[in-house]
Amino acid sequence: MKKVKIALLGLGNVGRGVYIILHQNKEEIMKRSGYEIEISKILVRDLNKNRGVEVPEDILTTDFEEILNDDSIKLVVEVMGGIEPAREYMLRAMEAKKHIVTANKMLLATEGDEVFEKAEEMGVMFQYEASVAGGIPIINGINENLTANKVNELYGIVNGTTNYILSKMELEQLDFDSVLQEAKEKGYAEADPTSDIEGYDAQYKLAILASLAFGTKVDINDVYREGITKIKPIDMKYASDFGMSIKLLAIAKDDNGRIELRVHPTMIPETHPLANVYDSFNAIFINGNAVGDLMFYGRGAGDLPTGSAVVSDIISILRKNIEVENQNPIIRNNLWEKQVKNIDEVESRYYIRVTVEDKPGVLGQITTIFGSNRVSLKSVIQKGRKNDESHEVALVLITHKTKEALINDSIEKLYDLRTVKDIENIIRIEDFN
Amino acid sequence: MKKVKIALLGLGNVGRGVYIILHQNKEEIMKRSGYEIEISKILVRDLNKNRGVEVPEDILTTDFEEILNDDSIKLVVEVMGGIEPAREYMLRAMEAKKHIVTANKMLLATEGDEVFEKAEEMGVMFQYEASVAGGIPIINGINENLTANKVNELYGIVNGTTNYILSKMELEQLDFDSVLQEAKEKGYAEADPTSDIEGYDAQYKLAILASLAFGTKVDINDVYREGITKIKPIDMKYASDFGMSIKLLAIAKDDNGRIELRVHPTMIPETHPLANVYDSFNAIFINGNAVGDLMFYGRGAGDLPTGSAVVSDIISILRKNIEVENQNPIIRNNLWEKQVKNIDEVESRYYIRVTVEDKPGVLGQITTIFGSNRVSLKSVIQKGRKNDESHEVALVLITHKTKEALINDSIEKLYDLRTVKDIENIIRIEDFN
Ligand SMILES: NC(=O)c1ccc[n+]([C@@H]2O[C@H](COP(=O)([O-])OP(=O)(O)OC[C@H]3O[C@@H](n4cnc5c(N)ncnc54)[C@H](OP(=O)(O)O)[C@@H]3O)[C@@H](O)[C@H]2O)c1
Ligand SMILES: NC(=O)c1ccc[n+]([C@@H]2O[C@H](COP(=O)([O-])OP(=O)(O)OC[C@H]3O[C@@H](n4cnc5c(N)ncnc54)[C@H](OP(=O)(O)O)[C@@H]3O)[C@@H](O)[C@H]2O)c1
Repeated sequence: MKKVKIALLGLGNVGRGVYIILHQNKEEIMKRSGYEIEISKILVRDLNKNRGVEVPEDILTTDFEEILNDDSIKLVVEVMGGIEPAREYMLRAMEAKKHIVTANKMLLATEGDEVFEKAEEMGVMFQYEASVAGGIPIINGINENLTANKVNELYGIVNGTTNYILSKMELEQLDFDSVLQEAKEKGYAEADPTSDIEGYDAQYKLAILASLAFGTKVDINDVYREGITKIKPIDMKYASDFGMSIKLLAIAKDDNGRIELRVHPTMIPETHPLANVYDSFNAIFINGNAVGDLMFYGRGAGDLPTGSAVVSDIISILRKNIEVENQNPIIRNNLWEKQVKNIDEVESRYYIRVTVEDKPGVLGQITTIFGSNRVSLKSVIQKGRKNDESHEVALVLITHKTKEALINDSIEKLYDLRTVKDIENIIRIEDFN
Repeated sequence: MKKVKIALLGLGNVGRGVYIILHQNKEEIMKRSGYEIEISKILVRDLNKNRGVEVPEDILTTDFEEILNDDSIKLVVEVMGGIEPAREYMLRAMEAKKHIVTANKMLLATEGDEVFEKAEEMGVMFQYEASVAGGIPIINGINENLTANKVNELYGIVNGTTNYILSKMELEQLDFDSVLQEAKEKGYAEADPTSDIEGYDAQYKLAILASLAFGTKVDINDVYREGITKIKPIDMKYASDFGMSIKLLAIAKDDNGRIELRVHPTMIPETHPLANVYDSFNAIFINGNAVGDLMFYGRGAGDLPTGSAVVSDIISILRKNIEVENQNPIIRNNLWEKQVKNIDEVESRYYIRVTVEDKPGVLGQITTIFGSNRVSLKSVIQKGRKNDESHEVALVLITHKTKEALINDSIEKLYDLRTVKDIENIIRIEDFN
């Protein structure tokens, strides 16, 4: 059996998963890769931390140079996260002709080009399956198995924390704050959950997925982003009345070379496969012009699921000839230049929940505003008094498909009406056609 | 741009899909493969058939030797189906150092070893993504992206025709015969639907999937098989009362090196992701010891979806260096030897529907038989008279988990009871835990 030495940068959640899998599934991995893998060094910050796995003390190090300068280490697994020093370490490892596996979405979504180019320049292999949707093989799915397709649309539930929260809100009629609190206690949400609940995490992931699916460079700032904090139990209830679920979707569409990139809460038909993705599961739904509809579903995070992707990446590098240069697959994010639509140009149906004075003529005023903006309403539902003293009622408007700019304009005019007390929520509706 | 010549064997459904995709997505395919692909020959039986695509006449041939002897043809796409002459043609093409892409499940499930070995021997690349579940990248998913895992279980809805029929029966309360008739008219079922409705097609596919997932050789005859023809609307209704759906599942489990392989109608909880796979869609649900639960969902048949898999396989071959030998991935179906359980040894819960005489004491007789066989019943539900004159009632029994042998033995004894008029149906229940 051939032997190969590798190093890990980081031994947190993902690093632990990688460590466990390499030991627990040693026989499978040897047979499938043709190599006995030895983890010869692991970079950490704190040598004394309890890591939930027993690691021989002498392989932990706080000094990256030890890894860099060890020529017997052929492959480096970056699972430390963040931009720096992860970026610097990867670039230098590649310069030292080491192959790289990474799980770092933030880096790939922002500084991806630089590392791709360095891998190309140095002729080393570079794999990053774990960077999006953890254990789900969506990166290789797009890069290797959908290559015959023009991808038309991609819809992802790519953040487990927010899907857990929305699922709980939907299934148990709970409010956002209490579910978030519980999620924190159970470890499903971080102490500072901003990156998840405000959609930043999904934004990174969408930038990576869209860039690969469309073969174009994507600037993270071109991805429109909205989080889930404004979703109320009452929105969940109305959605359910309409036969809909609310999910935080990462959406990318290619409209004849002009692309849409957006992350926001979305009402989707409850019969759609994505609507049945509950709990902290992730799923990516793709429409390709040859394959039609395709969905990948699984665990988007966690030590072992994410480790599964990392270790499968390691195996895929080892199966190629690691001694031969330039075995990289073609980098595909600079094949086409595509223009990104502004969110104003996006077309969608909309759910709009407003509180208005319970007076005759209010409905007429509102429908007139939408009408004058060429927004046609599919339904206007009066949902009863808010409470008896206020003389306010809730109205739920569902529009036909229309440009977002026209919605925004209508909303501004609604605010001018004295009878409109508040625009409580606006949620985009996706019909998948 | 580099150029490469390929040949197709067959221009039926899949061949047409491949032809269309290679033309329609030419630019995508060029950029992603690095090659301009020319289809220089297509083997058919009938030169004059209308094929739904316009093909230059001079590339059609009925003579395989023309393809074999043309050294400029580097890659052969086998989409003719059947064992012979497909087997012979592939072996000879490989001997002539041509790379192969095939969609032929029947051949792979029965004579797979021979073609794998020939590919290895000749150092040519061999891809077969389209052979199972059409456009869904499940073969590469298992072979490339789940390699870090020990696969514990695999459950597939891998036959579109039967899933279409069962979906219609479930959603529209129709009976099997009328849905089958309609499916034939719509082209969802073949004139002779035996291979689909009796589970043979799923049996082939399971043999291939299990062999790859478990890294072991699978004899097609070791796959237990039952079709869907016995499913009645009343079974669908009872299933629904219990919160279950009925699907034709292809099931493979690895129980510490002893494996189960079976295709049969199965009741599954309606909350399970597989229960929401409707219409002619396919899905494969896998549990790996690292990745956890994972599901792939999409189109399992059709010209373009299947063509998508074939063309992506072509691209993946072209991306490697087609001039260099021995770039095959390691063949993984001979890594372990596993023993296959007999269906008698399988453990499951069971739904048993019987018609009995409406007499006092009958229930007692029946429960005594199960009890004496150590089969414990979870529920026994009497479903009212069949009709008023017969004095017969329907009983539905749901068992706890038990060995199939004990069920069979109990059923035999039931037949001996004079009060038992008929055992109408027995359906295995899968709880996924
Ligand atoms: N967690 C998931 O489920 C998941 C899923 C998909 C992708 N990812 C990605 O995987 C990466 C790792 O995530 P994680 O959850 O495992 O993170 P984590 O638990 O915070 O672990 C980070 C590890 O890196 C080490 N580290 C960080 N900065 C370092 C530095 N400057 N020098 C040396 N060591 C350093 C830490 O050392 P100490 O332990 O000594 O502090 C720790 O062991 C991130 O890019 C993340 O986005 C994570
Ligand atoms: N259909 C699907 O959706 C699907 C999905 C996944 C996998 N597959 C697999 O793909 C393969 C092809 O399926 P298909 O549906 O495309 O079959 P098909 O429509 O029956 O087409 C078969 C083609 O092969 C040609 N052919 C057959 N035997 C031949 C022979 N002895 N010499 C020369 N040409 C011959 C036929 O020529 P003529 O046209 O002249 O008769 C025809 O063009 C099969 O292995 C099938 O299992 C099919």
